[in-house]
Amino acid sequence: MGKIRAVVLLSGGVDSATTLAMALSEGKECHALTVDYGQRHRREIDAAERIATSLGAAQHAYLRMDLRPFATSALTGGGEVPRHRAPEEIGQGIPPTYVPARNTILLALALAWAESLEALEIFIGANVQDYSGYPDCRPEFMSAFEEVIRLGTRQGAEGRGEIRILTPLIRWSKAQIVKKGVELGVDFGLTWSCYDPTERGEPCRGCDACLIRAKGFAEAGLPDPLIS
Amino acid sequence: MGKIRAVVLLSGGVDSATTLAMALSEGKECHALTVDYGQRHRREIDAAERIATSLGAAQHAYLRMDLRPFATSALTGGGEVPRHRAPEEIGQGIPPTYVPARNTILLALALAWAESLEALEIFIGANVQDYSGYPDCRPEFMSAFEEVIRLGTRQGAEGRGEIRILTPLIRWSKAQIVKKGVELGVDFGLTWSCYDPTERGEPCRGCDACLIRAKGFAEAGLPDPLIS
Repeated sequence: MGKIRAVVLLSGGVDSATTLAMALSEGKECHALTVDYGQRHRREIDAAERIATSLGAAQHAYLRMDLRPFATSALTGGGEVPRHRAPEEIGQGIPPTYVPARNTILLALALAWAESLEALEIFIGANVQDYSGYPDCRPEFMSAFEEVIRLGTRQGAEGRGEIRILTPLIRWSKAQIVKKGVELGVDFGLTWSCYDPTERGEPCRGCDACLIRAKGFAEAGLPDPLIS
Repeated sequence: MGKIRAVVLLSGGVDSATTLAMALSEGKECHALTVDYGQRHRREIDAAERIATSLGAAQHAYLRMDLRPFATSALTGGGEVPRHRAPEEIGQGIPPTYVPARNTILLALALAWAESLEALEIFIGANVQDYSGYPDCRPEFMSAFEEVIRLGTRQGAEGRGEIRILTPLIRWSKAQIVKKGVELGVDFGLTWSCYDPTERGEPCRGCDACLIRAKGFAEAGLPDPLIS
């Protein structure tokens, strides 16, 4: 019997790198998918490519589409990325870095690829802990999307088994994610988190993503190879 | 009070043109969205642009992304478009022109735009009658997607009202759609249906889309301005 085939959404950050390492450690044949929806910098995409190669994904696909005309978000539009917010602020409300329908689009694209590869699983590193403000990171959102998959795909419609969404990190803290990644041999020096790098191409250390990452490594009691 | 704002998916064919005309006739402010997912020809996209302008959409957005690496479909890949199938064959099973997760992707993109426009409605010209083989054209698929919208969007999460999916044609025959379009002033000479045009840029008259279109005009007792 062959390996179970999976599509793994890979942004290039800590969470998706750990998710890919977990899927591989479970013996899945992993097809990594990186979507560029018009982010401000290419750093994340290059990071994803290096991570896919270093961890041993079966292949890495890169899909570009420009969502900037749709965006209200500070990540794709011209808004200000908030800086140096307190930890309790980061978890509150929907942040200005929210991209409309981001996970819906990512899962739809992963689904298209899964269907054509006859993959049975989609892995996404969504996490409610640090980003409680993103409605599309919640477990109930994932369940609703699985129903869309069941009703909207050839496999589901023909009763040939359903494609499942797996979110192994959904309730983990960033410290747990970092520890698990290190345990599985993820080189976090290859990952990228910063929303708004400096002109020299270094993490800004002030955006929510940098602050959450730093807190995660600190709580895990491990150095961050990207900034050490 | 202003007009209700809507995103209308516009492929450039008979169904989506009629859907746009219906949304406009209901007094909606329509933002037309055409997605090019790597189809074989540009004819449909040019058609969509002309239809949006002629019917009076508030704006027309065009989004390109290349799904060909994902495709198993004859529409985006290298497979043969089936020709001169009998009407009873066309309605049976999932056709080889099925694009994996097509409507899931289209609705996800429409949702992103709707959220950023603060639109409350998404119109899609999906129709079960002629395409019973496409699982993602069924009403139960649309309801499942509305649940994804409710749980996955800022508007839904904050209880500020939900974005609805409207499918006015879902149970109509092609003849009904043609009649309604003519009644609302749609110039069907601007639309395009053929999956596989001739080298001279004319409809092939043999693919499923051409056959369904011809049957629709015949049953409506109206000439098709595109081929007359």
